[in-house]
Order: sequence, then C-alpha cells, then structure tokens
Amino acid sequence: MTISMYQASVPVFKRALKNLSAILEKAAAHAGTKKIDPMVLAGDRLAPDMLPFPRQIFIACDTAKFCVARLAGVEAPKFADDEKTFDEFKGRIQKTIDFIDGVKPAQIDGSEEKPISFKAGPRTLDFNGQSYLLTFAIPNFFFHVTTAYAILRHNGVEVGKMDYLGG
Amino acid sequence: MTISMYQASVPVFKRALKNLSAILEKAAAHAGTKKIDPMVLAGDRLAPDMLPFPRQIFIACDTAKFCVARLAGVEAPKFADDEKTFDEFKGRIQKTIDFIDGVKPAQIDGSEEKPISFKAGPRTLDFNGQSYLLTFAIPNFFFHVTTAYAILRHNGVEVGKMDYLGG
Repeated sequence: MTISMYQASVPVFKRALKNLSAILEKAAAHAGTKKIDPMVLAGDRLAPDMLPFPRQIFIACDTAKFCVARLAGVEAPKFADDEKTFDEFKGRIQKTIDFIDGVKPAQIDGSEEKPISFKAGPRTLDFNGQSYLLTFAIPNFFFHVTTAYAILRHNGVEVGKMDYLGG
Repeated sequence: MTISMYQASVPVFKRALKNLSAILEKAAAHAGTKKIDPMVLAGDRLAPDMLPFPRQIFIACDTAKFCVARLAGVEAPKFADDEKTFDEFKGRIQKTIDFIDGVKPAQIDGSEEKPISFKAGPRTLDFNGQSYLLTFAIPNFFFHVTTAYAILRHNGVEVGKMDYLGG
C-alpha cells in the first residue's frame, strides 16, 4: 500500500486546476458586478519584477503538462500562450486537463527512477521521476496557482481558501 | 517501486521549510540594508481580509506539523503563535523541522488508508491518510509558503523562484 506516481501527479494537478478554473469564474463575475475591466485583474502582478497574472496561469498549466508528459515519456501539446481573457484562461486550463486526463496510470506508474532532464533558463536540471515530481513539479505548480489566486485576492476578488482547496 | 507516505510528506515539508527559512534571512538582510523596520514586512498582508505574514508562517508550519503528527498517530507539539521577528519565525520553522524530523518513516508508512478527521472552523473534515496528504496538507502547505513569499516580494525583498524551490 503506497502512493503511485500517477496518484501523486495527475489527480493532484487536475483537482487544483479545476479549483483554479472556478476561481477564474468568480473573478470574471466580480469584474462584471463591480464594472471593472477584467484586464485590470488579468494584467496585474504582485511586484514590478514578478510575472503578471496570465503567466502565472500559463506556468501552472505547463508545469502540470510537462510533468505528466515527461513522466509518461510522451510529447506535450504546444500552446501559444496567447490567452488574454478569463474565458481564454479557462480554455487553457481545460486543454491542460484534457491532456493530462488522457494519460493513463500505466504510462506514469513506475517512473520513480526515470531520469528527467530539462533546461530551465540557462541551467539544465537533472532529476529522477520521483524527485522531479516531489521537489520541483508539485512545489512549482502550487506556487503559480497560489500566486494567481493572490493577485486576484489582492485586487478584491471575493474568493477564499476553500475555493483554492476545493470541496 | 512506489512513493511511500513518508517520502511524500516529511522530506517535502522539510525542504520547503528550509527554503522558507533562507528566504526569511534574505528578508531580514533586506530590511537591514534598506533601513526598513522589519515589522513593516512582517506585519503586511496582500489584502485587508487576508491573513498577515506571521499567520502565513504559523499555518505553513502547523500544516506540516499536524500532517506528520496525524499520519504517525503522535501528539503534535503546541506552539504559542507569539513569534514576531524574523529570527523568531526562523525559530518556529526550526522547531517544526525538529519535530517532523523526529518522526521515523516506519511511523508514517502504511498510513494511506488511515482515517483522518479534524475540525477546520465550523466543519469537520474527513479523509484517509493519502487523500489528506495529497488533497489537503500539501496544497495548503504550499499555499501558505507561497503567500509568505509573495508578501515579501510585494514589499521589494529580492528573492526569486530558485529561493523558493531550493538548490
């Protein structure tokens, strides 16, 4: 009785992405009610040299996408990073869920010791499957989901911890 | 070859807590260099109805502490939540690391199906060990670590993603 690589990846990402999508829906509704241009929320960042809201969404999605693709040894779909509206962000999240949902447990299970290497900026990062999942992908994924949430909260969107954690 | 409950909990929390402690050190140094009262950073929050910085640290620590205690079936140490300075926050993190480090893999492994119930505000949350770890403790833990980081970044502390992810 132990956790499989699949159980610790696909359902974890999927659940948080669905919660994030529901948070975006609340943000869009908030902008509508308050007559705020949605781009005010969707273009904000927490510090001048932090990435803006859309990039937080893209990187959260891509961290999940690449993690699942690398563990399974399949090609990740390419997305153009051109989404700008809340509806488009939700579409990006859905495309990500569709991709990771299409990968079967048997494709990921047993990838604990699989060598995983990739470039991150100027550096090459080397992991095995388990260290990649637990020390990089999961922390990085929740970093960007939380930062997206924090930008919305900072802008007055009425969401709370239970929206982030899900039901 | 699968992930044990221990591997997916104690080392994951410990690594992120050590990184958080190093981030606090940089925040304290930044306050010193810029002649900012450290309490300006340590008292800030991202929205008027979000929890302030100290509570982000306390909840990150306590999420790790209670997760490990509940999975292992041992009593969690009680902390007074009275830390106010960066040095005291680092002490709180170290006490948390010392506690989770004292729990052995054999105490946690095999807790996948263990019933875990606790009160969160007015609600009682029911999990088994695996769902508690993967759908509550890990997302909640990284939420508060990231929010602490975000408050410091929002205040100009020069830390980056690699400080969060660690070496």
